[in-house]
Amino acid sequence: MGAVIPTVDSALFAKLVDGLQQAIHQHGFQLLLASTNYSPEREAGEVLALIERGVDAMLLVGRSRGPQVYELLRSRGIPFVTTCHYDGTAPWPILGWDNAAEAERLADYLLDIGHRRFGVIAGITNDNDRAADRVAGFRRALARRGVALPASNVIERPYTVPEARTAMATLLRLTERPTAVMCGNDILAYGALQECLWQNMRVPEEISITGFDNIEMAAHCRPGITTLHVPAFELGQRAAAILLDANSGDSPPAHVCIDLELIVRGTTAPPRGSVSARRGTKAPPASLIPSESS
Amino acid sequence: MGAVIPTVDSALFAKLVDGLQQAIHQHGFQLLLASTNYSPEREAGEVLALIERGVDAMLLVGRSRGPQVYELLRSRGIPFVTTCHYDGTAPWPILGWDNAAEAERLADYLLDIGHRRFGVIAGITNDNDRAADRVAGFRRALARRGVALPASNVIERPYTVPEARTAMATLLRLTERPTAVMCGNDILAYGALQECLWQNMRVPEEISITGFDNIEMAAHCRPGITTLHVPAFELGQRAAAILLDANSGDSPPAHVCIDLELIVRGTTAPPRGSVSARRGTKAPPASLIPSESS
Repeated sequence: MGAVIPTVDSALFAKLVDGLQQAIHQHGFQLLLASTNYSPEREAGEVLALIERGVDAMLLVGRSRGPQVYELLRSRGIPFVTTCHYDGTAPWPILGWDNAAEAERLADYLLDIGHRRFGVIAGITNDNDRAADRVAGFRRALARRGVALPASNVIERPYTVPEARTAMATLLRLTERPTAVMCGNDILAYGALQECLWQNMRVPEEISITGFDNIEMAAHCRPGITTLHVPAFELGQRAAAILLDANSGDSPPAHVCIDLELIVRGTTAPPRGSVSARRGTKAPPASLIPSESS
Repeated sequence: MGAVIPTVDSALFAKLVDGLQQAIHQHGFQLLLASTNYSPEREAGEVLALIERGVDAMLLVGRSRGPQVYELLRSRGIPFVTTCHYDGTAPWPILGWDNAAEAERLADYLLDIGHRRFGVIAGITNDNDRAADRVAGFRRALARRGVALPASNVIERPYTVPEARTAMATLLRLTERPTAVMCGNDILAYGALQECLWQNMRVPEEISITGFDNIEMAAHCRPGITTLHVPAFELGQRAAAILLDANSGDSPPAHVCIDLELIVRGTTAPPRGSVSARRGTKAPPASLIPSESS
């Protein structure tokens, strides 16, 4: 079995690969892993290399690739599944979630507790459909509720802690500072949080922060990070089952779209002095909001 | 090229693999990656599988394996390099560092600033020579300076944040609480630190904590973690050079032992009320020690 992922330097993909590997091991398969550093060209090369090494089936991430990769897999008869995204119309198996809809739900939660001034620290959206879909979801929710999101408030950065820290520092210098910053994943959220803490800002009292993925760290830093839970290890195991199945017969392509659980932790609270528009009552002071709910 | 590492769910191995992959890509090679979950039996199976897939050379981690793996590699004529450890007498190329000597240096630093009551949160030492060597180094330094390390103060745990938190909670309940806790890597140190912060303990004023590896997070959490810097990305690139070289000729096995840099950050300071035995002068109060030096 082969897996081609953007990077091994990611707690999410590491857990996914771990689940995949443990499940296929029980069926006597070995995993050959390759990474692309988010480059469709490199992915095409790695897919070809794995096919030439004789893999029986393959896991791919997302949909940012040219049609020639699908053509290659079809012509060689290699079953594959894509994950970490969703498209109900694709003629191949997909096991993932709707990044735009999930991001929208996260933004709705922040709108519901009273936030109106937002910042976004996104991953690099070029050649990364998951990052792009999340930003699209944030934008859709805000537009639907009539809340502006100025261009200056949306920053794209690679998924690293220092990049997130400089992005957060930029957002904190805005004249109209956001009261909530939505991050493209938990690594970015963690970096944003640490920048606030190093600047002696109180989170969530002065600013709310959200992540995406629920990697281990999100539960254990202080305050814990409000995020969406991606069950990465279990997804890896389920992907293994789909690939083993595809390899043994000709069942129709499975389309599985999971709902992610919203995990509210200590990095989010109503903005200071806000009135909860939804309930029509004054929001409780942030200090009364429990700072850890998971 | 093949690489067989303990786990992809590790910032250290991820960076190492990234460096290796980027370097071999420039020479037109693809990386096939397999992981063992710290099991020598699984490693033996993965090495065989990679050989059968036709890899030209291989990177392995540490020395916790049976002689049959070396025999297999030799009989098939597959060049390989081991990394993350050191043994000057091995008849194959090694690119790494002396885990025991480096751990000893870390313990010496803590002894020098006045600590005498220690705890250790180690990785699982069975089948992991790097984890075992680090504990041996801690013990050697303390024994040399006549400092006791009771069995109750040494806890072995898998390299995860929640495991480290429960280990730290156990150490904090000791009647003779340690003033310094040496952790087997930065993940364990991060978990230990977070447990202290959640318990409202002041770090480093009430307890010092050290890590190992200098993963990205160690510099960015607050306080930053005192640790030893492993240049993982560069090591991956140098390993690639060794493997490419071995693949093209019959040069003698390279033995490279690097010194790790000690990075002192905010998680370490002299114990409260301590007298610096070495300088014969009173240690400054912990609050005057700069909390970030990197």
